[in-house]
Amino acid sequence: MHNLASQRALVVLSGGQDSTTCLFWAKQRFAEVEAITFDYGQRHRIELACAKKIAELAGVIQHVLPINTFSAIGGNALTDPTVSPTTTTEATALPNTFVPGRNLIFLTFAAALAYTRQIGHIVTGVAQTDYSGYPDCRENTLKALELAINLGMEARLQLHTPLMFLSKADTVQLAQQVGAMSALAYSHTCYEGQQPPCGQCAACVLRAKGFAEAGIDDPLISRLQQEGK
Amino acid sequence: MHNLASQRALVVLSGGQDSTTCLFWAKQRFAEVEAITFDYGQRHRIELACAKKIAELAGVIQHVLPINTFSAIGGNALTDPTVSPTTTTEATALPNTFVPGRNLIFLTFAAALAYTRQIGHIVTGVAQTDYSGYPDCRENTLKALELAINLGMEARLQLHTPLMFLSKADTVQLAQQVGAMSALAYSHTCYEGQQPPCGQCAACVLRAKGFAEAGIDDPLISRLQQEGK
Repeated sequence: MHNLASQRALVVLSGGQDSTTCLFWAKQRFAEVEAITFDYGQRHRIELACAKKIAELAGVIQHVLPINTFSAIGGNALTDPTVSPTTTTEATALPNTFVPGRNLIFLTFAAALAYTRQIGHIVTGVAQTDYSGYPDCRENTLKALELAINLGMEARLQLHTPLMFLSKADTVQLAQQVGAMSALAYSHTCYEGQQPPCGQCAACVLRAKGFAEAGIDDPLISRLQQEGK
Repeated sequence: MHNLASQRALVVLSGGQDSTTCLFWAKQRFAEVEAITFDYGQRHRIELACAKKIAELAGVIQHVLPINTFSAIGGNALTDPTVSPTTTTEATALPNTFVPGRNLIFLTFAAALAYTRQIGHIVTGVAQTDYSGYPDCRENTLKALELAINLGMEARLQLHTPLMFLSKADTVQLAQQVGAMSALAYSHTCYEGQQPPCGQCAACVLRAKGFAEAGIDDPLISRLQQEGK
């Protein structure tokens, strides 16, 4: 790995388990780290509160950028309160939590902010392993996007995806290695937006499975138990 | 050229000369044409009024999508009223009307809308010939972006750039061939946002040069003269 210690990175921080892990991963590798969080009309506003808390715990500057465009396009479960996240959109065979091009947009706006702040590295927690059918989380998509961004901005931004090929258990191990555990106690995963998490939705089940396979207690569950929730 | 007569296209319509020409170009080639216009905090709101008028004249559905993110990123002349469009940003040697990644974002949102509406073709009026230093208007950028979009959405969207290698005079000739002239009488070009156009800014000069070299009167100028403006 190149020595990036003198460099600056911008981490796309959603407030979830993966992006929180990436934030601490980046803090170990780069001299300066900032976070970018998108307020794009997500159904669960708790994600934004989690991201803010996690950025504070990590001691990094957090940029919160609004995106009002997805809601205007409409028709998907993550931003449209009239659509239930459990139904599948038949036409595409993708889960209807799929916002077309969401990661493309997030990363391009992250690149635009990085460009204006002269930050050379962008870190995102997407993973091909458990991508749930999201094609914009795959390696080949991100490689093409990195090229488009660098051509389109005449930049030399590097896109880092440290979780791309990790299992959820591997990600939990990585989180422990990079010191992300205490921040993970405030991360949000539940598709139902519940705090404490519902424990039943696909996201909760995947998270629990990862911690179980890694043989590590989920600090979120531990914290809530200690707080009597 | 493939027979696209049975297909549907979405044209990115800014209200300017190039996108207006593309709208009528598309109307000649596709069975159904819709327009998408972005309300992204542009300094000159007159562009939005022009785009609306032109969509009406063309008889196409116009989608107006808001993007509040560029203003939040800030620091450029097109969306930031505190920055003058005449200064050059020294650090990048690009004109400071450059919004990093603007076309990447526009085309990705256009693709997201096309995806949800099952439209297979996107048309944009970018041109490498007179790109004024904007790297996101170049052929190689758009090819990379088309790939990223199609990988990221598992789609087969085709991106059309009919003006890519045309001179401004060629574009004027094309506009006449595709019947865009009466709509061009309502198009907006002036960087200063003036109506009638200032005639002095780089955009006005380029437009006038194109019409002069094509040997065709600018219908905008003719209309304004007839109206005594």
